Amino acid sequence: MNAQMDPIERMASELAKLPGIGRKSAQRLAYHLASLPMDQVRALSDALFQGREAIRLCARCGNYSALELCQVCSDMKRAEDVICVVRDPRDVAAVERMHDFRGLYHVLHGVLSPMDGIGPRDIRIQELLDRLGDGKVRELILATNPDIEGEATASYIARLVKPMGIRVTRIAHGVPVGSDLEYADEVTLSKAMEGRREM
Amino acid sequence: MNAQMDPIERMASELAKLPGIGRKSAQRLAYHLASLPMDQVRALSDALFQGREAIRLCARCGNYSALELCQVCSDMKRAEDVICVVRDPRDVAAVERMHDFRGLYHVLHGVLSPMDGIGPRDIRIQELLDRLGDGKVRELILATNPDIEGEATASYIARLVKPMGIRVTRIAHGVPVGSDLEYADEVTLSKAMEGRREM
Repeated sequence: MNAQMDPIERMASELAKLPGIGRKSAQRLAYHLASLPMDQVRALSDALFQGREAIRLCARCGNYSALELCQVCSDMKRAEDVICVVRDPRDVAAVERMHDFRGLYHVLHGVLSPMDGIGPRDIRIQELLDRLGDGKVRELILATNPDIEGEATASYIARLVKPMGIRVTRIAHGVPVGSDLEYADEVTLSKAMEGRREM
Repeated sequence: MNAQMDPIERMASELAKLPGIGRKSAQRLAYHLASLPMDQVRALSDALFQGREAIRLCARCGNYSALELCQVCSDMKRAEDVICVVRDPRDVAAVERMHDFRGLYHVLHGVLSPMDGIGPRDIRIQELLDRLGDGKVRELILATNPDIEGEATASYIARLVKPMGIRVTRIAHGVPVGSDLEYADEVTLSKAMEGRREM
């Protein structure tokens, strides 16, 4: 933090560190902030810092939460016998948006990636096994991304959990709804064929 | 500021107020911030608030500045006999980027817009006239935007300043360099024809 630095430049260079915000957008945002009344910039600045400060990981599922348990885990109406395993808290938000899944989550906070030195102990796999210990869970839905690391992580967890007598499922891979077959890549298309169902 | 609000939601809703950041990008950014270490979020939060706090208007030209005089006005090598009039501080940055103009600026902080109730007293026109009073300035370059308000503002200032015996010029309108004639709108094209020069 250089106090001598041009304030616009200082704002822009911090904003440019955010994903999806390039040099030019960062500068545009900095000029916009400079033109706002102090209290509006304070509201943004406070929301970011205090927001980050308020966030902790749900003691049960590892989702972001303001309280000991996240909104999903503290909702008594959620089915406790199905757990959907995802990589990130933002994946929880994605599944929640479909308003369809009524079970609980488990957030791994990463996926296995030997290339990056991320092994089973670096993500929340032990915490998942601990949750499964009480025998209440009937089904574990593995919803990691359909990429190499996501698949490897799903296989790894499946191998550990199946012997516990719990049903382990993987979300379907296929052609996205509303997309054009012509533009689907070969792997997706082959997964879609493989996963075909009777009509 | 709702302390009870979900922290991710609070961050996202403040970020979504920024221009060019929609609901979805705001949420993506909020999740990103949640995943960062506290001190990195603090650095951003501080840069925004302290940056805004440090900004004042240059006592001479009205550009954003951390000091009494902005970087341009305090640079002794700049020509003091040419002033380029622009609407916003970001226009100063745009002209500076071309590394070609060696004179000073005057930032109006707006343009005349009767529709929005913005008259001559609402923008920094009197301050401009005050600067021209000492007779040092030879040329005033009007670089407001080539839109209705920008043109009207330029005409208004030209009418006031010409009788003072100062040369008043307007930046050229025409087809942008590197663009395609086919896609130029009619008004731009007609301005380009009107402003044609001998080769």
